[in-house]
Amino acid sequence: MAMSLDGFVAGPNQNQENPLGEGGLKLHEWAFSTKTFAAMTGSADGETGVDDDVLREQFNNVGASIMGRNMFGPIRGDWGDHSWTGWWGDNPPFHHPVFVLTHHARDPIPLKGGTTFYFVTDGLDSAVAQARKAAGTKDISVGGGASVVRQCLSAGLLDEMQIHLVPLFLGGGERIFEGFDAKKLHLKPIRVLEGKGVTHLKYQFQK
Amino acid sequence: MAMSLDGFVAGPNQNQENPLGEGGLKLHEWAFSTKTFAAMTGSADGETGVDDDVLREQFNNVGASIMGRNMFGPIRGDWGDHSWTGWWGDNPPFHHPVFVLTHHARDPIPLKGGTTFYFVTDGLDSAVAQARKAAGTKDISVGGGASVVRQCLSAGLLDEMQIHLVPLFLGGGERIFEGFDAKKLHLKPIRVLEGKGVTHLKYQFQK
Repeated sequence: MAMSLDGFVAGPNQNQENPLGEGGLKLHEWAFSTKTFAAMTGSADGETGVDDDVLREQFNNVGASIMGRNMFGPIRGDWGDHSWTGWWGDNPPFHHPVFVLTHHARDPIPLKGGTTFYFVTDGLDSAVAQARKAAGTKDISVGGGASVVRQCLSAGLLDEMQIHLVPLFLGGGERIFEGFDAKKLHLKPIRVLEGKGVTHLKYQFQK
Repeated sequence: MAMSLDGFVAGPNQNQENPLGEGGLKLHEWAFSTKTFAAMTGSADGETGVDDDVLREQFNNVGASIMGRNMFGPIRGDWGDHSWTGWWGDNPPFHHPVFVLTHHARDPIPLKGGTTFYFVTDGLDSAVAQARKAAGTKDISVGGGASVVRQCLSAGLLDEMQIHLVPLFLGGGERIFEGFDAKKLHLKPIRVLEGKGVTHLKYQFQK
């Protein structure tokens, strides 16, 4: 999760036109400049280095992903004519099954490069079970948003967590670390890496 | 400032017996084990290393400090019989004048090693003016607590800021980064250092 120094993963006044809220896009600028991100858009541009290594690593050894609906696309409520296939482009960076939590059923969307979006309407436990089956011996990644991460934190489901800490103040918006049962969680730092205007903090949850 | 991963500088249910709130003391464990901290208590024990370097550095080239009353001691309201001289011990680590913001006047307290606590009853601007005069060409350090730091952030008074980010969740308590005008502040990372169970993040404010 990319997070501002004042603890927000999205800025104030989120809406369909501005899904990350005011200033929220700035949390991801470090990623946009990388070779790994450029490759997602079919470009050979982008910079290598710490940030690129970190972003690429996030997709390493991952066999399935889970995400909230807002991370798939901005549409709320009914899916409409089903023409929108999410903001991850034609060739999403996952290259594995992605389970999208939603209250609105939809057929799976297979895309280039091995990514298929599946829509799970019966809750987090079901998404985890399906992801575990799909991932085999590989890892499951939780992409976000904040609500899904909080559900995972509360359920003690996470083994590792990475925070991309961006040195800016959003002054409001959506926090990730509130509204979950924090007391039972114990973290151990794994590593810290300094990128360009971002600090990558990786932690392990002690079981 | 020492801060939990969920953004708190003190835990829930702060009171006179538990001034840092539930779990709040854990934010400072990295400091307690250092040689610099041990020396504050007159001991020659304590560990050297990153955390010790960081703590010692905080007192380097500092000619005056400003702090809120709660950082001086737990007494609220009137000072009583004036026998309590704060929880920094007989030989506080400052070795320079310390200006304590309070609504209750009190005579200065000179202690060993060059530390004198002055009690400022006419607000932050006055404390800054007095500290600047006392510091001469040296730096002024703002020790906290959260309220004083927020006042300084709002007034754009800070040149540098260091966060000691501790990988634990307090689940409630006092936040430092809320209730100030965040939008005009721009930070530039200076350095990140990984200590024992703490990440030391140093930033510069862009003027």
